[in-house]
Amino acid sequence: MPHIDTQNEQPGILGLISYRPRTGRALTELADALLRDEQGLSRGERELIAAAVSSGNGCTFCAASHGAFAAHQIPGGNEAVEAACANPHQAALPARTRALLNLAEDVRKGGREVTEQRVAEAREAGADDVDIHDTVLIAAAFCMFNRYVDGLNANLPDDERFYEELARAITEHGYTAAVSNEPPG
Amino acid sequence: MPHIDTQNEQPGILGLISYRPRTGRALTELADALLRDEQGLSRGERELIAAAVSSGNGCTFCAASHGAFAAHQIPGGNEAVEAACANPHQAALPARTRALLNLAEDVRKGGREVTEQRVAEAREAGADDVDIHDTVLIAAAFCMFNRYVDGLNANLPDDERFYEELARAITEHGYTAAVSNEPPG
Repeated sequence: MPHIDTQNEQPGILGLISYRPRTGRALTELADALLRDEQGLSRGERELIAAAVSSGNGCTFCAASHGAFAAHQIPGGNEAVEAACANPHQAALPARTRALLNLAEDVRKGGREVTEQRVAEAREAGADDVDIHDTVLIAAAFCMFNRYVDGLNANLPDDERFYEELARAITEHGYTAAVSNEPPG
Repeated sequence: MPHIDTQNEQPGILGLISYRPRTGRALTELADALLRDEQGLSRGERELIAAAVSSGNGCTFCAASHGAFAAHQIPGGNEAVEAACANPHQAALPARTRALLNLAEDVRKGGREVTEQRVAEAREAGADDVDIHDTVLIAAAFCMFNRYVDGLNANLPDDERFYEELARAITEHGYTAAVSNEPPG
């Protein structure tokens, strides 16, 4: 049961966004800017970083949601997402994506954990300044989203198909459009 | 030196916001929604939570900035902020503020660290659902802002007076207005 009465039945962050619409709007706009931007990283890579950080933080709702959103948008689908979350070193991913997942894992542990060496590895694998910026901010943002959802003990969906249906809506329409309507399912 | 070339000389998060204006806009809107809302917690309490979390995460830029913003807006000024960041249990703060700082510290460690007991203590001290929501989201958001600034190794200002001048601009005009112009100083 959530720590507060959100006055609605929506699971995960959706219930929190409905409860406090002003912060909710800023958060969905941040999600669109971070995860749907078309400069640099692909949408699939962005969602994969989000899923891996959420998995590392043990946030069931965010890991399942963004895992589903990533699976819709990267080659290899669900299997590729699960392998990357379990161990980016072993995963059959492009070198740049692997290097950025390592950078994201450092950020997850703490901003001061990021070393010059880690950034240099990402550059050697082909990442530029914008890719490095976006990776750090996506990883940092999921340290917020995960704490928001779990810190308030938000409900999980009753049915696992929820994630798949939400993935379809968000892949097609983006965060702000998909979340400001009634959630699918 | 920052890990990326932000193409500007602004310190801390200001340089990052200028570098990527789309995410920057979403972040400043989130800061206004979280730290300047007039429902529930006072602006001073909101900034105090931000300063304490940033201090716990060892983020020099955010702790100094939000410490200065809090000092402008709570009774006791700088001394009260320093005492609260050093140890909320010992600080001469209202019981509700102390309980919310304890809740924020749990969130800082991880979303799953928050217990029913901690939330019950906040309620007993007078916090309602909105106060608890906002405290969790402020603490979570500073786990993002701190990681963003330190994960990219953003510059510190050359002159400590920077924080005081920024405090004056933000207290008067809010985040979006203060940050979208040239920074003071």
